[in-house]
Amino acid sequence: MSITKKTLQDIGEFGLIAKIRNWMATSRPEVVRSIGDDVAVIDMGQKALLLTTDILIEDIHFERSWTDPYRLGRKSLAVNISDIAAMGGTPKYFLISIGLPKRLPLSFTSLFYRGLKDEARRFQVDLIGGDTSLSPKIIINICLIGEGKKGNILFRNGAKVGDDLYASGTLGDAALGLKILQDKGLRKKPKGLVNKHLSPTPRVELGQALAKKHIASAMIDISDGLLNDTNHILEESKVGAQLWEDRIPLSTLYRRWAQTYSKAPYQIALSGGEDYELLFTASPQKRAKVSSLARSLNIPLTRVGEILPEKEGVHLIRKGGKEVKLPRLGFDHFR
Amino acid sequence: MSITKKTLQDIGEFGLIAKIRNWMATSRPEVVRSIGDDVAVIDMGQKALLLTTDILIEDIHFERSWTDPYRLGRKSLAVNISDIAAMGGTPKYFLISIGLPKRLPLSFTSLFYRGLKDEARRFQVDLIGGDTSLSPKIIINICLIGEGKKGNILFRNGAKVGDDLYASGTLGDAALGLKILQDKGLRKKPKGLVNKHLSPTPRVELGQALAKKHIASAMIDISDGLLNDTNHILEESKVGAQLWEDRIPLSTLYRRWAQTYSKAPYQIALSGGEDYELLFTASPQKRAKVSSLARSLNIPLTRVGEILPEKEGVHLIRKGGKEVKLPRLGFDHFR
Repeated sequence: MSITKKTLQDIGEFGLIAKIRNWMATSRPEVVRSIGDDVAVIDMGQKALLLTTDILIEDIHFERSWTDPYRLGRKSLAVNISDIAAMGGTPKYFLISIGLPKRLPLSFTSLFYRGLKDEARRFQVDLIGGDTSLSPKIIINICLIGEGKKGNILFRNGAKVGDDLYASGTLGDAALGLKILQDKGLRKKPKGLVNKHLSPTPRVELGQALAKKHIASAMIDISDGLLNDTNHILEESKVGAQLWEDRIPLSTLYRRWAQTYSKAPYQIALSGGEDYELLFTASPQKRAKVSSLARSLNIPLTRVGEILPEKEGVHLIRKGGKEVKLPRLGFDHFR
Repeated sequence: MSITKKTLQDIGEFGLIAKIRNWMATSRPEVVRSIGDDVAVIDMGQKALLLTTDILIEDIHFERSWTDPYRLGRKSLAVNISDIAAMGGTPKYFLISIGLPKRLPLSFTSLFYRGLKDEARRFQVDLIGGDTSLSPKIIINICLIGEGKKGNILFRNGAKVGDDLYASGTLGDAALGLKILQDKGLRKKPKGLVNKHLSPTPRVELGQALAKKHIASAMIDISDGLLNDTNHILEESKVGAQLWEDRIPLSTLYRRWAQTYSKAPYQIALSGGEDYELLFTASPQKRAKVSSLARSLNIPLTRVGEILPEKEGVHLIRKGGKEVKLPRLGFDHFR
């Protein structure tokens, strides 16, 4: 296939990001992190400025038939706050660009902004600007600005061989909730799972505590799925890992419903996205501190794996002890 | 009409922005400017952080048939740089969210980024992050971060009664260029006008000089049209103005082509948007400084009006002396 005939489908989302990184490389010394990371980091002296952006497009990221404008408003902001949480930062300000159909009822817009406002208040984040446009589909783009203390910020690239790998909360609920929302035959939809998809809670307090107390060595939020996001840490840290399938924290509702949509009981928890839980690594010396933090914040923090040398790649230890060497799985927008 | 049945079309873009401002009011002392301004301003001590965002949507803001990806890349960044220029600030970093169709040729994307890169280099701006997504239409959202010295930043609200009103460059060329692009019957399209629409030049150096030398009292970039953007200054400064129609700076090409698309020779220059020239007010004592700046930068700076007390509203003095009191004209996305 000649280069000129290639489409985005051929190179995929991660291929595109690699190309953009290559095309647009920056050399400013104060730019600590840029393209390819979820959050850009700019050194401002004692503080660092954290910047992240996410776009949500109707019928790609959500459907009007199974969301409501209030929760859409909350989630639009929540997914950006989660990126700042994953560095241990404090979200501060945001700008929102919004594209809206001409005949959209004003009530939709006002409920959307009510959700946005409630989420902003909850995390003490302020709307400072934006842009509005007509659009055939609803488009929401948020750019969130946060800050962090320079010595405390957590990146994806700090994982060390021998570190434990932890996940917060339970995994797979959001992806399972999405399958349930999309299941037109299912009348009574289990609220707990649906809510985890529609109304995720960014783990700001947990992220800040892990950073401030210097417990974690690397961190990311689980937006692309456990395997994909583990891979992000491994690539940036130049390490490998093993994951213990039967240690993956699952909710009671997940255990009840997963079998309806997948034969492999852990599949959705392994590759499903949008849980917005935190995935982090920490030295085994920190185990007591991790447990004590889990208790004090009342958030489950579960050891799901261990960091190995890079040459080991990623191994999944299945229930029963069978070991599987994994290729990268997960979601690619363009494929 | 009941409130719940209202649509965005009923309240219009400016009605929506007023509502958002009302819903989302911020009270943080360091937020100097926020919703409703083109640029948000955050007090960081000596420096101020300037943040602006613009969304471009295929078939709303541009059509693939009459743009090329390289110029689209340049313009996407240019329109944001222009917002920072209009405050006298220095553009520094940007994030880009991009929605792309699955079957878009990779060559489109790489040309788009080449344009983006050339514009970024020209103004020494660095890409630091973004988001990519699949989308049925091309969507481009840029969030640009700049900085300025706190005492120098220019706002819309500094115009004083008696100030002169100036415009840079020539007006109406971009809007006329758009009409020409859309005119399917026209084979040979005049490049000068078409280029002004496709490849606007943000007036960064001019904006910085007007701010640093404390020449201007209020400033805005002309993105919504001369009348509309004059109105923005008047509303924020709580003043009125008269505009002299025959002083509006017109290009030779504009004079030749405007009559093909409008009976009133100044109409397109008065209400057409996207020139990205600067509109500013300055005390009559600064006239010599304005002239000298125009010469040194080789940019025409034309006195097009005068600031009056608020109760006078906006008067347009037509060629020949006839005075017209103006309602607000210009472009509203939702109407």
